[in-house]
Amino acid sequence: MIAVTILGNNSAMPTIDRHPTSQIVTINDSIFLMDCGEGTQFQMLKYKIRRSKISHIFISHLHGDHYLGLIGLISSFGILNHLQDLHVYGPSPLKEIIELQLKISNTQLPYQLFFHTITKEGLLLENDKFEVRCFKTNHRIACFGFVFIEKIKNRKLNIEKIKQFDIPICFYKKLEEGLDYITKDNLKINNTELTDAAPKGKIYAFCADTKYDESIIPHIRNADLIYHETTYLDNQKEKAELRFHSTSKQAALIAKKAEVKKLLIGHFSSKYIELDDFESEAKKIFINTEIATEGISYLI
Amino acid sequence: MIAVTILGNNSAMPTIDRHPTSQIVTINDSIFLMDCGEGTQFQMLKYKIRRSKISHIFISHLHGDHYLGLIGLISSFGILNHLQDLHVYGPSPLKEIIELQLKISNTQLPYQLFFHTITKEGLLLENDKFEVRCFKTNHRIACFGFVFIEKIKNRKLNIEKIKQFDIPICFYKKLEEGLDYITKDNLKINNTELTDAAPKGKIYAFCADTKYDESIIPHIRNADLIYHETTYLDNQKEKAELRFHSTSKQAALIAKKAEVKKLLIGHFSSKYIELDDFESEAKKIFINTEIATEGISYLI
Repeated sequence: MIAVTILGNNSAMPTIDRHPTSQIVTINDSIFLMDCGEGTQFQMLKYKIRRSKISHIFISHLHGDHYLGLIGLISSFGILNHLQDLHVYGPSPLKEIIELQLKISNTQLPYQLFFHTITKEGLLLENDKFEVRCFKTNHRIACFGFVFIEKIKNRKLNIEKIKQFDIPICFYKKLEEGLDYITKDNLKINNTELTDAAPKGKIYAFCADTKYDESIIPHIRNADLIYHETTYLDNQKEKAELRFHSTSKQAALIAKKAEVKKLLIGHFSSKYIELDDFESEAKKIFINTEIATEGISYLI
Repeated sequence: MIAVTILGNNSAMPTIDRHPTSQIVTINDSIFLMDCGEGTQFQMLKYKIRRSKISHIFISHLHGDHYLGLIGLISSFGILNHLQDLHVYGPSPLKEIIELQLKISNTQLPYQLFFHTITKEGLLLENDKFEVRCFKTNHRIACFGFVFIEKIKNRKLNIEKIKQFDIPICFYKKLEEGLDYITKDNLKINNTELTDAAPKGKIYAFCADTKYDESIIPHIRNADLIYHETTYLDNQKEKAELRFHSTSKQAALIAKKAEVKKLLIGHFSSKYIELDDFESEAKKIFINTEIATEGISYLI
């Protein structure tokens, strides 16, 4: 299971109730932060995010509304006496900016801070439970989207068949891991008779800031959920093009062509007070669309 | 009249309802921003500050909780298409940090941004209605407090005496400016007979972050209102000393020795949930003490 919690759903200019981009992605017990606009640490307090669990932060690009909250969060982790390593992934010169700010404030962090400068598409992070990849988007400055791919190795128990052979519960974990079962009478039962193939892991793609560009489709194809920015409505598509942003229709078109299961839209221009039109415009093209709402967790 | 509006009253680590340092100082029609912790622009939205009126920002020092909201505010002024010049006063290398961030985000501001690097105590800004001066405080890195001094040139009309001479209302302004009055019978009445000396302008001093240090007293003596930090209660005075911060008792002692009229206290450590003890501790030494509360304007 993957959960995506929205901390900010607005574009550069905040409004009274919409904040700059920031999302929490939870995979099993791991919590990742994606983008960190100004005030992200306040949003974490408001929505009771377990900050202490965060050890990896991914920054899509260096427009202020996507990273200005990072230095405050890094400093607060210091005050909170975090001891675990913190890894920050983002384009250059994120490392230089943060290190300059820490230096001039004479801040000594009690934990190790590692920067991983993103320069090209590909794998960023992997373990046996998930992987995180990045891909280029088409924005005014270097910008990357991120894909979280859950790995499920364990085979799925076929309880009905298992019960036929009276297999003790303590052996279930081994069955999930693919072991065959040997009965008391020394009869071997093949694992494939007792379990089904591991289910496909869930996939979430965060498409960051981008103008309409089908070149991102191979990276997000068949995802269970994607987040695609919709800074403007369709009647502002020239402005969207000019500013390297997307409209609601364009986001829906990407979702449709990439054959994803669900689309979350966000990064709304502060000029829009009501957001209903974004959803209705997108739904005409891709029905399973939802407004990314601050404080809400979307489970896949 | 001077009004001080508190936008943030907490120290480095924000809490759910207390934010990093930021204050608005209003003198007549001029609005100044003093310090600009992360999220200051959200606080301005919340408390309906007329952002468009701000053309001078004073930053006391480069600990993050006093300036990290500045780049976001500068960027938002750009998106809002502000055209008037913006002047930022603060220690080095504030200019370098902000300019680096603007450069890497490829941001072109529609207005002129001027930096005034503060290196020593003295006058920062002056016109015929006010002056702003700065003074050194005793903190872990270079840090300055600010004093706002209202200038009142106009003499005070003595209405009782004016009425004795049947002087037309249209001449009142000239009387305030110090002119003598000539009657129809060509009799000169000295201005000093009709007016009293101009009242003393109000003085507000923002003492920034500082450990207990009586050397600030000459700069704030007899002020109508001072803001002095009280990061800790008295039982944490060793920690305060070590971290170059003050306790509530120390702030009150400074207010008493400087013979000011009123003391506002703030910059509370996030470890304190309730703030009542700060006020009661300070009041034992200096009775006219008040907790600086977010969203409240203090008029002098």
